[in-house]
Amino acid sequence: MGGSLARDLAALEAPPRIVAWSQDARDVDQAVAAGVVDEAAPDAAAAAGGGDIVVYAVPLGAALDLLDPHRAIWRAGAVVTDVVSLKAPLVARARELGVSDRFVGGHPMAGGESSGFGASRAGLFRGARVWLADDTGSPAARDAVCALWRAVEAEPAWIPAREHDRRMVWASHLPQLLSNVLAAAVAAEGLHASDLGPGGQGMTRLAASSPDMWRDLLAASGPDLASALYRAGGVLGEVAAALEAGRLDEVAALMERTRAWRREPPPAGASDDPRRTGSP
Amino acid sequence: MGGSLARDLAALEAPPRIVAWSQDARDVDQAVAAGVVDEAAPDAAAAAGGGDIVVYAVPLGAALDLLDPHRAIWRAGAVVTDVVSLKAPLVARARELGVSDRFVGGHPMAGGESSGFGASRAGLFRGARVWLADDTGSPAARDAVCALWRAVEAEPAWIPAREHDRRMVWASHLPQLLSNVLAAAVAAEGLHASDLGPGGQGMTRLAASSPDMWRDLLAASGPDLASALYRAGGVLGEVAAALEAGRLDEVAALMERTRAWRREPPPAGASDDPRRTGSP
Repeated sequence: MGGSLARDLAALEAPPRIVAWSQDARDVDQAVAAGVVDEAAPDAAAAAGGGDIVVYAVPLGAALDLLDPHRAIWRAGAVVTDVVSLKAPLVARARELGVSDRFVGGHPMAGGESSGFGASRAGLFRGARVWLADDTGSPAARDAVCALWRAVEAEPAWIPAREHDRRMVWASHLPQLLSNVLAAAVAAEGLHASDLGPGGQGMTRLAASSPDMWRDLLAASGPDLASALYRAGGVLGEVAAALEAGRLDEVAALMERTRAWRREPPPAGASDDPRRTGSP
Repeated sequence: MGGSLARDLAALEAPPRIVAWSQDARDVDQAVAAGVVDEAAPDAAAAAGGGDIVVYAVPLGAALDLLDPHRAIWRAGAVVTDVVSLKAPLVARARELGVSDRFVGGHPMAGGESSGFGASRAGLFRGARVWLADDTGSPAARDAVCALWRAVEAEPAWIPAREHDRRMVWASHLPQLLSNVLAAAVAAEGLHASDLGPGGQGMTRLAASSPDMWRDLLAASGPDLASALYRAGGVLGEVAAALEAGRLDEVAALMERTRAWRREPPPAGASDDPRRTGSP
């Protein structure tokens, strides 16, 4: 995620100076060699202290851990943001640490199951929604983070952190775990991934995601995510029971409903809602 | 599926003459206008009586229903095949009807959630595995169907119909229904499809599949598919319980296993197994 953002920023007409650090030094070395990053910082603190905008493109736990030691390091007036797919824990931490003025949490709805600079790509954020938590951030900090994402042609939209996180349980974490569940069930049956058709391949793509990236997210959304899984399990049980009893009409009706849902155009006016898409 | 096959056959150096019929006449009209089909047959029987190779690219129920009335219509020596994703019901019907010599059931592992000529595309079968049921078919019929798929650069492979169908429950039908289950759960939460990130979008893509195409398949694989759903539901329940109890190690371990499974190279020698990939 950090690599893709750096690629697009480096390609701007007036690119910013980009200083980067990664837990895996090879990522930054590759990015420097590719002309995408200007300088490899020797450690996280050096990267955090070097910018007007500091972006934490790290797992949730790392972001939570770094805010406290880094708040003494950030430049005066520097704006701090992140790309973690849960926002409430970071907003709460920023408040605890008294840095809510400069912190604006972000979450780009982009990227895939791979990580590292090798998985980065130019244009990843073009047209992608980027959720920004409207709980914290001075007007200037909000504008700066909004402008950062607009620069790479993303579509920033404002949302309360808790509402964002509730959505993500359904929109991101549940799909992730269903992919793992499907892969585990198919693997237990002795099938190889290459035995799947294109549909099954697509449905198990996320099963290759990094557990390191997900562990903190799962811990933070655990009980809500468990409820979402039980709810999906309930639907699954109804479908299985209908199939077992030969009630095909029921299954066909469910398929018809999900087909209509998948094809529905986005709700009219959603992008005109100032609470969601403008600077609040 | 029929449209994509016609596209590739029409593009061969020495293309065969293609006579087609579709329940939706617009499909064939479009294919004729695109120069992909030579002649629109006035009805299914006219199409079935006009070829050396007759391909049933129709839902399972329609294929089962057409074999009996059509067996008096097929040309002497014509070879009959299909693209339905279950093979045992068709093999059984071909045997009942005394046409097992000329019938070779096929199933290309290609295509997506859309149907009709508008969804067809050139090169769809390139490199795709096409399962051929080794239960029926004279050597000449098998060679003809094998050659048909090789002509469009697919990779035909032989398999017993029952083993094929057992695999498909896991490789194709279970992923399909999990996509519907996920979509139904997310829709019930009030989220729109455009609220999903790329992962969630991919996981609900199949939820747009046609219930008409699936109904017969679900009916035919019902009890086996119900078992597969219950098994997946069992894994899902374990993951939910682990999350609820904060046993993150367990979930991370499952993710690690499915990641390794997804990345495993195809089993060595699989493509050299004559039972699966050569003419038997």
